[in-house]
Amino acid sequence: METLKETYTVDVSGVKIGGSNPVRIQSMTDTDSSNIKETVKQILLLYKAGSELIRLTIDNEDSAKNFSEIKKIVRDKGCDAPLIGDFHYNGHILLKKFPDCAKKLDKYRINPGNVGKKGAKTKNFYQILDIAKEFEKPIRIGVNSGSVDGDVIERLKENGIKDEMIIQEAMILSCLDSLNLALDYGIKKEKIILSCKTQSPKELIYIYRKLRQQCLQPLHLGLTEAGGGIKGSVWSVVPLAILLNEGIGETIRISITPFPGGDRRDEVYIAKELLESLNLRYFSPKIISCPGCGRTSSDLYRKLAKEIDDFIKENEHIWIKDYVGVEKMRVAVMGCIVNGPGESKNADIGISLPGKGENPQSLIFEKGKQVAVLKGSLKELAIEMKKRIKSFVEREYPFKGEKDGKRPKRKN
Amino acid sequence: METLKETYTVDVSGVKIGGSNPVRIQSMTDTDSSNIKETVKQILLLYKAGSELIRLTIDNEDSAKNFSEIKKIVRDKGCDAPLIGDFHYNGHILLKKFPDCAKKLDKYRINPGNVGKKGAKTKNFYQILDIAKEFEKPIRIGVNSGSVDGDVIERLKENGIKDEMIIQEAMILSCLDSLNLALDYGIKKEKIILSCKTQSPKELIYIYRKLRQQCLQPLHLGLTEAGGGIKGSVWSVVPLAILLNEGIGETIRISITPFPGGDRRDEVYIAKELLESLNLRYFSPKIISCPGCGRTSSDLYRKLAKEIDDFIKENEHIWIKDYVGVEKMRVAVMGCIVNGPGESKNADIGISLPGKGENPQSLIFEKGKQVAVLKGSLKELAIEMKKRIKSFVEREYPFKGEKDGKRPKRKN
Repeated sequence: METLKETYTVDVSGVKIGGSNPVRIQSMTDTDSSNIKETVKQILLLYKAGSELIRLTIDNEDSAKNFSEIKKIVRDKGCDAPLIGDFHYNGHILLKKFPDCAKKLDKYRINPGNVGKKGAKTKNFYQILDIAKEFEKPIRIGVNSGSVDGDVIERLKENGIKDEMIIQEAMILSCLDSLNLALDYGIKKEKIILSCKTQSPKELIYIYRKLRQQCLQPLHLGLTEAGGGIKGSVWSVVPLAILLNEGIGETIRISITPFPGGDRRDEVYIAKELLESLNLRYFSPKIISCPGCGRTSSDLYRKLAKEIDDFIKENEHIWIKDYVGVEKMRVAVMGCIVNGPGESKNADIGISLPGKGENPQSLIFEKGKQVAVLKGSLKELAIEMKKRIKSFVEREYPFKGEKDGKRPKRKN
Repeated sequence: METLKETYTVDVSGVKIGGSNPVRIQSMTDTDSSNIKETVKQILLLYKAGSELIRLTIDNEDSAKNFSEIKKIVRDKGCDAPLIGDFHYNGHILLKKFPDCAKKLDKYRINPGNVGKKGAKTKNFYQILDIAKEFEKPIRIGVNSGSVDGDVIERLKENGIKDEMIIQEAMILSCLDSLNLALDYGIKKEKIILSCKTQSPKELIYIYRKLRQQCLQPLHLGLTEAGGGIKGSVWSVVPLAILLNEGIGETIRISITPFPGGDRRDEVYIAKELLESLNLRYFSPKIISCPGCGRTSSDLYRKLAKEIDDFIKENEHIWIKDYVGVEKMRVAVMGCIVNGPGESKNADIGISLPGKGENPQSLIFEKGKQVAVLKGSLKELAIEMKKRIKSFVEREYPFKGEKDGKRPKRKN
């Protein structure tokens, strides 16, 4: 397979997208953007979960008016993620009427399918571009299968494109048309990101491969309307995995529907796992544990796996701040004599429990070597394993927490 | 990309794997296989969830002894999925000592990494092959990164293979060596499935691409020790999506660790969504719904999406039995004026709610045409939409429930 050329780099208020930069994670709020309190709360949640850019809709005067206040509060609270305004239908009006909002937003998302009808389309589009130029803001030209430009569809129909290909081809054409319009209007190529989201994984793969052949803009990937639960997460991950593994995609969002009671942060967690699974990013230490089978009738290793997983999640944000490279650490918690010792050896640190029995003898491996044999209850094993993981981190990863390299005294 | 040649077809008691057959879903029990009641219960659960082959470990005399009874009960209860015995270390002994188990199992899984040490390896392997020949059983040669054949690793080290490639190359070599040993011993090529599972998605992709170049056996795909939760599901899906999309993989298993309280069936549900997302299989009607954003501050569409999703799940097993093609139906429940009407038009049947307000006006589309405008509460919208979906199914998909084509009277 030929190696793809690097895309241009778009700098979104310090977060660089494209070129040789890592694939960036984006998320979107679902609060009413005019509700300052709720929107701030969700932005902070998404940020802490690991979202590197956060988008919110700006769909009416109140949301445009309140944006500066939202940005001020989240910045005061330590969130430095760029905030992106999502515009449809009235973006040109809102950005013009509320220059403070236009100035404070870090990027504008424009949907060419609903920027305006017929003659007004180009005029409205230019009006947004004028403002982007004035404030030197990057834009995303974001096409969506649910709102493809009707004129482009008509054009393709007249050209005899097959029915089943119309939506896909119209999305690509609408996206590239708008890109050229923006470039011709004087927007720099380092200011434009593109996206073309559909709800069909196979279509998405087709569209993005084509887009990547036809321009060097950074591409924002995402399946739209994926739905919720297992369906939403699997359907989102499948096409993005395929594209990212081909080197296509400079920023991603997982658009899943949280069912009532669901956690909005899941879209960020899924994005992180997706990038880590392909070795594109490293965010946090990982647990390797077996799925269990009849050889592991004791529930012990599962409980231990969960407890170790929780322990790592509680501590990783401190470790990552303090120790270089700890985000690449792999911890095995295996409950099986078949694969346990092997996987534990392959991990940085691992515990291999025997298959059965409630009071088992367990082997501990560090960097491929057996270093201990433990006996004891779940509680005892968990305490010992946590102690060993903590000491492994402190010993194996260079400390960067203090300038003079001294380790701070820890209370626990 | 060149088109891959079709693999051989392996017939596992009527479930055909490879060739032009659809990609098959496999799962594995995690009960103690000697516990008849619990094992039967879980096999039935996995079967009803959609698992087309079910594997269980046979690791001691009790499990081998009890297998016939397990198989009898699940068959009596209507489960016709082939049952596969997973053997490690003592497979040659158990299969020989319990011919009834050997005869009743539909396939044997052999791990060449632990079939025996040094000289005994080939002897033990042949002993299993003799039994497979006698009862005309297919086998899977299943290599696992946690238990790679030590001799093969030594051989590669002596040949100067780089450290970071040793495990991958050893797995491929061990797998192909065992394949050739089996073929030379007279096992037919239509009786052998291969697998090489590792816990690294990138390694898995590398290994299976190589395997696929080097033989035409059907390949069983799965990431091993994926872990649980979001991590487990994303890491499992990523490499399988990439391989399946290249035409590699004739059967799959999602090996995730259920955390305490988790549902073993999730591994089947994930496998189904994976295959459906790539249009490789169609199992059930699908909901298309948007992720929500600030334009959809009302929670209404989420509740409706969840209610419609539940309604479809409750009814789909009857519909699929009665109506041809209903498993391909796509139902949109959209809460957004930007993409709602478009996505609802693209779906077979769709409802597009306006963004805000608790008593909204909603557009219904069928086959791309707007057919109604509804007003009302969530309850009223849900009742009406369910009625319309039911009637759409009965009208649009040919009935196959009764031989004379007459529709049975339904009570509700």
